[in-house]
Amino acid sequence: MTNATVCVVGLGLIGGSLLRAATAAGVEAFGYNRSAVTVEQARAAGHDVSDDLGATLDRAARASSLIVIATPMTALDPVLDAIAVHAPDCALTDVISVKRPVADAVATRLPGVRYVGGHPMAGTSRSGWEATDPGLFRGAVWVVAADDGADPDVWLRVAALATAVGSVVIPVATDEHDRAVAAISHLPHLTAAVTATIGGADGDLPLRLAAGSFRDGTRVAGTAPLLQRAIVEGNRLPLLNALSETIDRLTAARDELRDHGTVKVLVDDGHRARLRYDELSATPAAPVTGVRVGDPGWERALRHQAYEGRAWQG
Amino acid sequence: MTNATVCVVGLGLIGGSLLRAATAAGVEAFGYNRSAVTVEQARAAGHDVSDDLGATLDRAARASSLIVIATPMTALDPVLDAIAVHAPDCALTDVISVKRPVADAVATRLPGVRYVGGHPMAGTSRSGWEATDPGLFRGAVWVVAADDGADPDVWLRVAALATAVGSVVIPVATDEHDRAVAAISHLPHLTAAVTATIGGADGDLPLRLAAGSFRDGTRVAGTAPLLQRAIVEGNRLPLLNALSETIDRLTAARDELRDHGTVKVLVDDGHRARLRYDELSATPAAPVTGVRVGDPGWERALRHQAYEGRAWQG
Repeated sequence: MTNATVCVVGLGLIGGSLLRAATAAGVEAFGYNRSAVTVEQARAAGHDVSDDLGATLDRAARASSLIVIATPMTALDPVLDAIAVHAPDCALTDVISVKRPVADAVATRLPGVRYVGGHPMAGTSRSGWEATDPGLFRGAVWVVAADDGADPDVWLRVAALATAVGSVVIPVATDEHDRAVAAISHLPHLTAAVTATIGGADGDLPLRLAAGSFRDGTRVAGTAPLLQRAIVEGNRLPLLNALSETIDRLTAARDELRDHGTVKVLVDDGHRARLRYDELSATPAAPVTGVRVGDPGWERALRHQAYEGRAWQG
Repeated sequence: MTNATVCVVGLGLIGGSLLRAATAAGVEAFGYNRSAVTVEQARAAGHDVSDDLGATLDRAARASSLIVIATPMTALDPVLDAIAVHAPDCALTDVISVKRPVADAVATRLPGVRYVGGHPMAGTSRSGWEATDPGLFRGAVWVVAADDGADPDVWLRVAALATAVGSVVIPVATDEHDRAVAAISHLPHLTAAVTATIGGADGDLPLRLAAGSFRDGTRVAGTAPLLQRAIVEGNRLPLLNALSETIDRLTAARDELRDHGTVKVLVDDGHRARLRYDELSATPAAPVTGVRVGDPGWERALRHQAYEGRAWQG
């Protein structure tokens, strides 16, 4: 690639951590944040940041930077509009936790822009510059969208950035990503919420008796409600499907318990899935082999290898 | 009390740990286990145990021991029948994780026996003598059933044993206990199971993307399925109610998400309950005051104080 500078738009937990991690990894990076307070904090820490979005994007255009959108989903549209004015030729990615709504907004507001979506699966329960951590992405999965027709140059730049900050790059189609995170991230927020709610629905006494299964199973319900909602409500359709399947399976378990005194099917299914998760967690991903990004069918070939448990390693 | 020896029937994780903890606390304790291997292991560790149930119960009768049933629920009936033959006058308690089915079985098979149920809320994900731990009960809640008409002498002996091994004694009515553990222990096993199941329902890729919310929310699904089922299926009616309420709340959340794009009610409710749990966990229980066990209405008075967050401290 001809130019490796990175422009991070939005310096919250993910964006701020990315600015720090990229800088620490020797990648030239600069950034923008709306809040002057955050800009002050980032500058005090030695970073090259501004609260002027237009000027920041003009600079990105001059430097042919990779622009990384790291704002909340709710702040996306004005950022896209500013990019259309100031830096429409830049390579573009984002780190927002749903991919289809971002891809659709980009296609609507920036037709023809070279965009490849991304999602680092890294912690989001705290916020603000104080919470940023240059080690946040180390060992985390970073999904890089590998849809048919993706721009190979942008794809490689996004994957190189993710790899530079220590992440494991997994190529996934946009809609596949959103279905997956509905199942393994957004639904767990709602099952934790309902578990906590039932535990607390009958006064304090049950909560006083609660031990490990309740403590671990409801931990994520302790995250700030607005933050949880911003994450899960942005993935409405896939989450609706996951919720409906959850309700169906719990209803089947309730009926099995009522009619036959057992919850065998649900407990066995859950145990099998958890063991598989443990196995996969203990197994480092093998590298993608034999795919040259840009060759005909590279997107499909990458996705296929991801299904088989391989990760992109540059 | 005139005699403080304890006879532990069943030396699995809970019973074996209790034998060790009581002995370590200076309480004279002996025990029985069906498996000669476990008996060998316990003897090798210096404990006074036997694989002869009749002889063990005869000894308990001679010593007026407190008998603690620590077998699985499924092995309860033959133990009760043996107690009817060998030690019908002994004070009796148990450490099984549901209380109404045990109380009913005792009332049927041992009418007139002096029984007070108990339940130490301590870990159960491992089993066998190797897993026993004399520190298992330290700081754990030990529910001691305080139903109207409970025998005050037996109640005090059970509470003294629980206190001796370091537990926090909470007096709770039998049915109240079963409703509470359905909510804070048995339901969390099923919500963990369904969360794991949905996460694993679409191949390995979603599991490869899973991070903290999935890992913590499904941890308990890793427990051996037969052990999970033995615990939760024994509490069928309260668990049916908790499951139905769970299904209702998830259905309301699904409808709210579908019709209004939000999951505010569920996320807010869950967050409030989890915060309350955190508050209660951080606050040591105040001692019960002004109740003399045996005085008229003592059972109700103890339960009332437990509702207000107090624990029995002897």
